[in-house]
Amino acid sequence: MMRVRVIHGPNLNLLGKRDPEVYGSHTLEQINAEIERLAGELDMEVQISQHNSEGEILDAIHACCDWAQCIVINPAAYTHYSIAICDAIKAVRLPAIEIHLSNIHAREEFRHRSVTAPVCVGQIAGFGVSSYLLGLYAARDIIAKRWR
Amino acid sequence: MMRVRVIHGPNLNLLGKRDPEVYGSHTLEQINAEIERLAGELDMEVQISQHNSEGEILDAIHACCDWAQCIVINPAAYTHYSIAICDAIKAVRLPAIEIHLSNIHAREEFRHRSVTAPVCVGQIAGFGVSSYLLGLYAARDIIAKRWR
Amino acid sequence: MMRVRVIHGPNLNLLGKRDPEVYGSHTLEQINAEIERLAGELDMEVQISQHNSEGEILDAIHACCDWAQCIVINPAAYTHYSIAICDAIKAVRLPAIEIHLSNIHAREEFRHRSVTAPVCVGQIAGFGVSSYLLGLYAARDIIAKRWR
Amino acid sequence: MMRVRVIHGPNLNLLGKRDPEVYGSHTLEQINAEIERLAGELDMEVQISQHNSEGEILDAIHACCDWAQCIVINPAAYTHYSIAICDAIKAVRLPAIEIHLSNIHAREEFRHRSVTAPVCVGQIAGFGVSSYLLGLYAARDIIAKRWR
Amino acid sequence: MMRVRVIHGPNLNLLGKRDPEVYGSHTLEQINAEIERLAGELDMEVQISQHNSEGEILDAIHACCDWAQCIVINPAAYTHYSIAICDAIKAVRLPAIEIHLSNIHAREEFRHRSVTAPVCVGQIAGFGVSSYLLGLYAARDIIAKRWR
Amino acid sequence: MMRVRVIHGPNLNLLGKRDPEVYGSHTLEQINAEIERLAGELDMEVQISQHNSEGEILDAIHACCDWAQCIVINPAAYTHYSIAICDAIKAVRLPAIEIHLSNIHAREEFRHRSVTAPVCVGQIAGFGVSSYLLGLYAARDIIAKRWR
Amino acid sequence: MMRVRVIHGPNLNLLGKRDPEVYGSHTLEQINAEIERLAGELDMEVQISQHNSEGEILDAIHACCDWAQCIVINPAAYTHYSIAICDAIKAVRLPAIEIHLSNIHAREEFRHRSVTAPVCVGQIAGFGVSSYLLGLYAARDIIAKRWR
Amino acid sequence: MMRVRVIHGPNLNLLGKRDPEVYGSHTLEQINAEIERLAGELDMEVQISQHNSEGEILDAIHACCDWAQCIVINPAAYTHYSIAICDAIKAVRLPAIEIHLSNIHAREEFRHRSVTAPVCVGQIAGFGVSSYLLGLYAARDIIAKRWR
Amino acid sequence: MMRVRVIHGPNLNLLGKRDPEVYGSHTLEQINAEIERLAGELDMEVQISQHNSEGEILDAIHACCDWAQCIVINPAAYTHYSIAICDAIKAVRLPAIEIHLSNIHAREEFRHRSVTAPVCVGQIAGFGVSSYLLGLYAARDIIAKRWR
Amino acid sequence: MMRVRVIHGPNLNLLGKRDPEVYGSHTLEQINAEIERLAGELDMEVQISQHNSEGEILDAIHACCDWAQCIVINPAAYTHYSIAICDAIKAVRLPAIEIHLSNIHAREEFRHRSVTAPVCVGQIAGFGVSSYLLGLYAARDIIAKRWR
Amino acid sequence: MMRVRVIHGPNLNLLGKRDPEVYGSHTLEQINAEIERLAGELDMEVQISQHNSEGEILDAIHACCDWAQCIVINPAAYTHYSIAICDAIKAVRLPAIEIHLSNIHAREEFRHRSVTAPVCVGQIAGFGVSSYLLGLYAARDIIAKRWR
Amino acid sequence: MMRVRVIHGPNLNLLGKRDPEVYGSHTLEQINAEIERLAGELDMEVQISQHNSEGEILDAIHACCDWAQCIVINPAAYTHYSIAICDAIKAVRLPAIEIHLSNIHAREEFRHRSVTAPVCVGQIAGFGVSSYLLGLYAARDIIAKRWR
Repeated sequence: MMRVRVIHGPNLNLLGKRDPEVYGSHTLEQINAEIERLAGELDMEVQISQHNSEGEILDAIHACCDWAQCIVINPAAYTHYSIAICDAIKAVRLPAIEIHLSNIHAREEFRHRSVTAPVCVGQIAGFGVSSYLLGLYAARDIIAKRWR
Repeated sequence: MMRVRVIHGPNLNLLGKRDPEVYGSHTLEQINAEIERLAGELDMEVQISQHNSEGEILDAIHACCDWAQCIVINPAAYTHYSIAICDAIKAVRLPAIEIHLSNIHAREEFRHRSVTAPVCVGQIAGFGVSSYLLGLYAARDIIAKRWR
Repeated sequence: MMRVRVIHGPNLNLLGKRDPEVYGSHTLEQINAEIERLAGELDMEVQISQHNSEGEILDAIHACCDWAQCIVINPAAYTHYSIAICDAIKAVRLPAIEIHLSNIHAREEFRHRSVTAPVCVGQIAGFGVSSYLLGLYAARDIIAKRWR
Repeated sequence: MMRVRVIHGPNLNLLGKRDPEVYGSHTLEQINAEIERLAGELDMEVQISQHNSEGEILDAIHACCDWAQCIVINPAAYTHYSIAICDAIKAVRLPAIEIHLSNIHAREEFRHRSVTAPVCVGQIAGFGVSSYLLGLYAARDIIAKRWR
Repeated sequence: MMRVRVIHGPNLNLLGKRDPEVYGSHTLEQINAEIERLAGELDMEVQISQHNSEGEILDAIHACCDWAQCIVINPAAYTHYSIAICDAIKAVRLPAIEIHLSNIHAREEFRHRSVTAPVCVGQIAGFGVSSYLLGLYAARDIIAKRWR
Repeated sequence: MMRVRVIHGPNLNLLGKRDPEVYGSHTLEQINAEIERLAGELDMEVQISQHNSEGEILDAIHACCDWAQCIVINPAAYTHYSIAICDAIKAVRLPAIEIHLSNIHAREEFRHRSVTAPVCVGQIAGFGVSSYLLGLYAARDIIAKRWR
Repeated sequence: MMRVRVIHGPNLNLLGKRDPEVYGSHTLEQINAEIERLAGELDMEVQISQHNSEGEILDAIHACCDWAQCIVINPAAYTHYSIAICDAIKAVRLPAIEIHLSNIHAREEFRHRSVTAPVCVGQIAGFGVSSYLLGLYAARDIIAKRWR
Repeated sequence: MMRVRVIHGPNLNLLGKRDPEVYGSHTLEQINAEIERLAGELDMEVQISQHNSEGEILDAIHACCDWAQCIVINPAAYTHYSIAICDAIKAVRLPAIEIHLSNIHAREEFRHRSVTAPVCVGQIAGFGVSSYLLGLYAARDIIAKRWR
Repeated sequence: MMRVRVIHGPNLNLLGKRDPEVYGSHTLEQINAEIERLAGELDMEVQISQHNSEGEILDAIHACCDWAQCIVINPAAYTHYSIAICDAIKAVRLPAIEIHLSNIHAREEFRHRSVTAPVCVGQIAGFGVSSYLLGLYAARDIIAKRWR
Repeated sequence: MMRVRVIHGPNLNLLGKRDPEVYGSHTLEQINAEIERLAGELDMEVQISQHNSEGEILDAIHACCDWAQCIVINPAAYTHYSIAICDAIKAVRLPAIEIHLSNIHAREEFRHRSVTAPVCVGQIAGFGVSSYLLGLYAARDIIAKRWR
Repeated sequence: MMRVRVIHGPNLNLLGKRDPEVYGSHTLEQINAEIERLAGELDMEVQISQHNSEGEILDAIHACCDWAQCIVINPAAYTHYSIAICDAIKAVRLPAIEIHLSNIHAREEFRHRSVTAPVCVGQIAGFGVSSYLLGLYAARDIIAKRWR
Repeated sequence: MMRVRVIHGPNLNLLGKRDPEVYGSHTLEQINAEIERLAGELDMEVQISQHNSEGEILDAIHACCDWAQCIVINPAAYTHYSIAICDAIKAVRLPAIEIHLSNIHAREEFRHRSVTAPVCVGQIAGFGVSSYLLGLYAARDIIAKRWR
């Protein structure tokens, strides 16, 4: 069974309450339920957590070494400046997929740059909750070495 | 039945012959076959074409008005400078999904900027052939207004 | 009789369908009719065409050598990056007038820069269909060497 | 009868004496006479003044509220840095047309940027005295809501 | 009795008429009345004036030497480019407080930079009419050397 | 009774010990006492805390939803790069007031930019302890919708 | 016999008519004749074409795979922005030599940057018609692996 | 007898009172007396004035046409942004000499750039009162066409 | 006995597992043992800790006030953006030495800039484990005021 | 007989020993022999020298006035910053040809800019030893005024 | 008797031969004679030398310590990049005057920046040979502490 | 016995005389004595020289090939622009250690960038004379392949 670690970054605990016109009106609980539903379909085990602290995200990434085959991560605001998360992803040497609910390329200039994307396999941005689901499909293809 | 238009940008006709370490070793024909296979699965009609000329890509986008519900486009090199393609996508007022085989955020600095992404719903980059397939899943969710 | 060549750039064939709040709701056919009406009034012969392809615009500019006394050109999106159109205008050594329907100086930062304006006599931007008509008046004054 | 306010910016009182190869050899008096002639033709009342002081230009713009339907303004050097004029035009909420005798886009880099154009309806640059006359035509179309 | 000089910069005479959604709907007269009311409460003498001309603002600042203990200044548009006002404030060697009705840090990029703030004691921006009143409180604390 | 949340950012626990020539010689305890004193005067309830961790500041902001009507925050060093705090303030949809003891516009270039100010109502910087007190006055006016 | 493909970019069909003080007074036909003369001398077969369309240049480069051992290309205006041509050259994996009639490093700032040069073996610029002839000599050395 | 116009820019009326460690402790009256003394020695007639208003400086420069052979100008703060003064100097077509009391190249970055120097014959900066006196010597050499 | 505090920044707990070609193959435990061995030799007491959280690093720096005479810190990724760590080091007013295992000046552009180095005594980068040992030697010389 | 001066810049004495994968494995002596062989063929007299000192290169360029008809120069590292060499080439008013062994446009960003190329006739870069030989051919065409 | 050291930078030995329209037609010998003539008049001893090598200029500046009271230096091209000359002037702690024959502020952008001016007392640029003579007058005033 | 070459860059011969508050009060002779003392201790042979000329530094680096195992170099001002020294270090393929007496990261912006550090093993900056001594320790560890 494939093992995928899903990490939600800062402020995502407010989802559903926060800028619904940008991020949709689903709560994090609803998103997690949907992730787990699709994971089941894809015969995939998932571990999911959300963290506001950059340090905790580092810890979560480090812990992947012992279990996960792939990381699906939405670094949220940290995307744009956390070189520490960039270094952590690079250090654990696991394939990672960067997820964004909103299309960061259509927002403020400072959100166009991702310091974490260069160490990920790829980036999926702009599809709301679907971004996470697409991330699971991508994780499956990466782990299964499909189309590589 | 959902109707999705897939547009491949410049030089993609060389796929399989070109930088396999970056883009994988599949030919465009193989990719198209895979797109059509998944489209069948998703109960989706697709029209696919590849163009080296920026003007022809504009024509292809314009023609979407009469048929497509969603555009899946890999503008390739034009991603980084074709304001004309940006304007065309904006003008047809159809949801578009930007696709990249490689992780453009991990390549040369000038490939990090996309002038077309801001007028798309979102961007999927870095998953090789899977990028297109993820694009189809995304198109389905957009047309079905799932998770929006 | 004065001879003026009017060249419409990429995506302008969509006028009337495209972002009416930015470009007005007139179709290209209506604009051309109005151009021809005023040309008649000003005792001016006009040739009008629209092109999505940068290469075709070069061809159209090159062909001006044999007939036109002045070029009225709306390079649209190409305004901001087509050094090739800039070179073509400079090469044919005919006075050219750059036209924009919208006020490009009030839009996105990247639309403020024109690479073609420096080789034109001048630029008229922001007056919708009137921009073209003002262009004809300007062409008349240039050809007649009025106020020079 | 339409009411248009024409405002000439700094140093334009020297016209005819100043860089004739750039601005033509007409004096400001000759230009004003021509403006008044065309205004008569277009059934338009005009008020014209020239100011070297930024503060006086602000006063002149403020005073437009009580009389003018449209402002035709050549902010000259202030074009490139007077955020105060930008704010004044925005504040009076009247349509304004930015005029330049020379093609500012073909001159020094620092003259390419206009801080006032974004709050104007549009910009006409490079046609010498004709720039003002085209400005009157544009004012007529704006006031008459022609082609809008 | 404390003596405070309040200087309003360019275009502020239009307050109440100008962009009410940005600056609120109070006229300058109402604001001045409120400033005088609070000054009375704080046992403070105020002199207030408004100027559109940069030169007149310099004169007003220079004149502070003979009377004021503190300057409360809203340089408005000049905030962003008037090195002359910056030099004047520095030259009179009086504590100055920079005031903005709107939150300049939330507006266009070019309004984020203040060339006058570095020579002021501090900046208060974004609280509408209250910005001025907070400025009076700050002036009181500075003159009284409270909390310093 | 108005309810205001005061959040002190990183390193402010060292106040009084740290660069007294920049931040004054008052300890955080003295500042908090003064804040509470004025809050009492203004008939305002305050909750005050200080955090070195960016994640804890996010938590503190999130918790405001349940109690506070206004946030008074000194993000200190995080002002200049914490897009996460920016997102948190925007997400809770409460009015926030950015406070700085020192005049950040008069310090190193990198301290001039605030990534949090654009999502706050306004910014007060440079008045030492008084900055916080002015922040309370501003909070009162915002909650009471005075002068809005 | 060595096989070299010579590709002339946009506007070069106007040579001899266009800015003779910059590009010399030779027509493209005369240049081609001279290229063929030297090719004969060097025992080299050449195929020569000129294209205004970026798309056609891509096609021409792609077609080199089947015949040419080396590409001699003057991308003209496209030099400075056509990432598509850059990608095409890289994709065909043939040695390419970038040619410019004029010294692009002595012209406008925007002509100093070449986006195609990094994927070529080298660049020869500034020698008029001789640039092409030097390109043939270079092609000979590359194919013959002389001095490598 | 040579005729030289000396123009002092904004805030210079405060000399002697203002930043003596930067500008020296001499008043403008003392400087003017010294200028007149040396002018007498050099058999030169001088007219001297000081202006805080940019508009008045333009008027003063314009008036030079009728009398002066050379302009000695210290544009002070306007040096760094007044394109209007730049245009005025260029327009009157008289040789001008830019003077600065302090060494602007050793002060804040924004004082290193002069927008007026490019239209002057040259610049003298950093010698305190002597800067003006050196300016008179330079004016003498220019008018007398010495060493040219 | 000299007292030196050694602080390891984020991700350094992965040392030995992470990019051995960049950081060498030693684990943090081995490095700490070596630090302690040399400290013994130099008659120095050391306290060592590693933290992934920026906030914890601030706490660790603050705590130095009570014990350490010198700080040896490798801020790792935080080097490049943590103004908070910069402020903390400045605030405690203890000499600090910045350490990097790799030569940050030879890596990605964004790693060349250190926001913490300006408040340290100096920087040692590129010598692998030896960087820390050199840091101890430097600490000894600083505390002993050798060569100062 | 044509007279050509060949100047090798800094570090080129190490050729053959230095980065053979970038510059080829030929020594400077071998390159000079080849230059002399081709010069003989072209009926050309050459003088060749290599200098590590910028000052000596200036002297060598100055000395060209008395003998050479053309300069073939590889300024190596000085290419990118020696305005002094730029001025020297401009001053001697002889045609110069800039040579680079490697394709500087394909190396580090800072090697793309040449401060010397703008004052040369042209630039040849990337062909290894052949770059020099192409330089001789170019020199012949320039001196013989072929194709000019 | 005052002792002044005059140092001419690179390429100035070519004066009279080099770009006479920029630098005038006087040779360095003529300039030196004129410098010596005025020095005599001002009762000043001068030592003059010219150097093409940056290292020799450093030596010349260092040697000033033992004799000169003031340095008059024209660093020519080195003005724009020689941080070494900047450091040398700062190190010898003698007043230095930067001289330029041409108005560097009216030439190419890269000549506007002086890295040596910030450590000089001031800069005199644009007066041809007179620049040096003005430099001597300035040196006299500095040594005599006139007007300081 | 280890063999280490120590190279002092421009102006360092003035040490002890120059800015003692920045570089300490030790003369170069004292520093060299200390270097030799420690070298003795470490069983290391050193050769030391100081050069003001960039060309001589290149020669010194080239000469290392024949003797040294490691280079300890303080390029002083050349650090920030000498691409030639960068190329020389890279060419000799010996490990080099960059030394700075002062903390260049705490000085002017232009001193933060090192063009030579990327080709060195590492950089030691800010420890005064100790920087050199730490450099010797580092050299020892590099030669002995300790901790690598």
